[in-house]
Amino acid sequence: MHSFIELSKIFEEKFNTRHFPAHTKTLYDPAQYILQLGGKRVRPVSVLMGNELFDEITPDAYELGTAIELFHNFTLIHDDIMDKAPVRRGLPTVHMKFGDSTALLAGDVMFVRCYDYLNKLKSTSLHKILHIFNHTAAQVCEGQQLDMDFEKRDTVSMDEYVNMITLKTSVLLAASLQLGSILGGTTERNQQHIYEFGKSLGIAFQIQDDYLDAFGDPEKFGKLVGGDIVANKKTFLMIRAMEVADEVSKNELMQLMRENPVDKVEKVLAIFKKCDVDTWANELKEKYLQTALQHLEDIAVLSKRKEPLKQLALFLIERQN
Amino acid sequence: MHSFIELSKIFEEKFNTRHFPAHTKTLYDPAQYILQLGGKRVRPVSVLMGNELFDEITPDAYELGTAIELFHNFTLIHDDIMDKAPVRRGLPTVHMKFGDSTALLAGDVMFVRCYDYLNKLKSTSLHKILHIFNHTAAQVCEGQQLDMDFEKRDTVSMDEYVNMITLKTSVLLAASLQLGSILGGTTERNQQHIYEFGKSLGIAFQIQDDYLDAFGDPEKFGKLVGGDIVANKKTFLMIRAMEVADEVSKNELMQLMRENPVDKVEKVLAIFKKCDVDTWANELKEKYLQTALQHLEDIAVLSKRKEPLKQLALFLIERQN
Repeated sequence: MHSFIELSKIFEEKFNTRHFPAHTKTLYDPAQYILQLGGKRVRPVSVLMGNELFDEITPDAYELGTAIELFHNFTLIHDDIMDKAPVRRGLPTVHMKFGDSTALLAGDVMFVRCYDYLNKLKSTSLHKILHIFNHTAAQVCEGQQLDMDFEKRDTVSMDEYVNMITLKTSVLLAASLQLGSILGGTTERNQQHIYEFGKSLGIAFQIQDDYLDAFGDPEKFGKLVGGDIVANKKTFLMIRAMEVADEVSKNELMQLMRENPVDKVEKVLAIFKKCDVDTWANELKEKYLQTALQHLEDIAVLSKRKEPLKQLALFLIERQN
Repeated sequence: MHSFIELSKIFEEKFNTRHFPAHTKTLYDPAQYILQLGGKRVRPVSVLMGNELFDEITPDAYELGTAIELFHNFTLIHDDIMDKAPVRRGLPTVHMKFGDSTALLAGDVMFVRCYDYLNKLKSTSLHKILHIFNHTAAQVCEGQQLDMDFEKRDTVSMDEYVNMITLKTSVLLAASLQLGSILGGTTERNQQHIYEFGKSLGIAFQIQDDYLDAFGDPEKFGKLVGGDIVANKKTFLMIRAMEVADEVSKNELMQLMRENPVDKVEKVLAIFKKCDVDTWANELKEKYLQTALQHLEDIAVLSKRKEPLKQLALFLIERQN
């Protein structure tokens, strides 16, 4: 058994290599660029942990983890194009550095490469693994589309937002854990519990993400604080504020979103604080964490094997970037 | 055995259905939209023909053909975004109708769907099929990147252009035929000959494509004639013209590309004709066709089984759209 930190190091060492051919550098260098920006490698480490919860880590888990990390980075490149995001992990996004067209294509070829790694799996469950992977990938696309649809709408309900976030963020974490557990040879029932653990944890993760965008420390955060506010994103915080703000504050929020003044971020944050949205977000995050931990509890395996997953949960919801 | 026309009809009937879920319509309707614009379905029909050259068509061939047609349409959606193309098959491109971001994402999810179909294959050669498919998909991305790189350069040699076209266009046709032949259970040697047949035919196909862009009948062509000229694409025709034009015409061509006057297409076409580029293109096309037919000849199977592939070759190089 390894701790979360140990598994992160082990994965990072294997992953820290060039994943693309040396030729056609104008395509592959931009793809490699985003991989070298670092990142938490939460999803591939989740594959390793899902595996090790039930059995020794198989070589397949590294291939599968690499595939999932490449998939995740492919979505980051394309999302950044769609969101016109200038900065990721403190450095220029791929499309800012190499142009939109090359970024689009670098994302595409990263997605192809991801299936190259999946095709290396020796597991007899390859068919099921591909099915879950493809289903999850489609859900992530659906989530991104809903996110964009919501930007054009005046109001989004909390249920709609949770559904969108589940698709865009949670299912990939959940699937990473489940796929790892399949490599570990566990039962269908245990697979479902680890999936649900990941799904609730993913929502808690997103609440923290939304929280950090508004209230994070700019030096630690690595992205521009208030980016969601500038982009009129309906986040957990914004939807909550629209639900609980008095009429005056609500109208002010709507006006700020329509008119985009230079002091928009500052003014929106003031309303968030007036509505205690920050406290509320921390409580909601805690609620999802508890649901996740209950599913972890329900997995039929020795409880000492579950320690790394508890560490993962705490890491994800306490992180500052 | 079926003729090319028969196989086209059989495939089209099976393919003419919704390939995406009913929900998240804002994502899936744009993806379905491009599939309903029609098209020649050359690549999936090539899968069927590669299969039937050696054995009865297996159900796998339809799944594989569908996967390849979805992959092809995914590249069309993304290429049209990159090329800022307004029209495809006489109708608005996906990004013109639904916006760049949705088109990008609709392409992504179509690519996911393509792997769903691949995952339905029953073939014991699935591993090899996925390997060839992934390798080909990466080559297509490389070809598109080189195409964009060339647009920024003043000169491109004929060899560089042929290499780019081979990657961007030919290898997918070649791989479709080879993958079909794998389903037909043929030898490695026959697989290589059918691959090379497709590769040379794909180049002949592209020569015809470049020719039609310049000299096609606007009513039959379905795209804006002269689109490559407007976009300063280095086509077979442009590269040849730059090679053989006298100094005056060459300088005029370079000036036209720099300055983009309103009568650019007209003036470039006049130079093309003065240099006999149209006659040259037809001869080059014929040369590649003969190479292709020689590889077809070399496939070790009864020659009457090769008839549909000869029909395919003639269809591709004589088509007017």
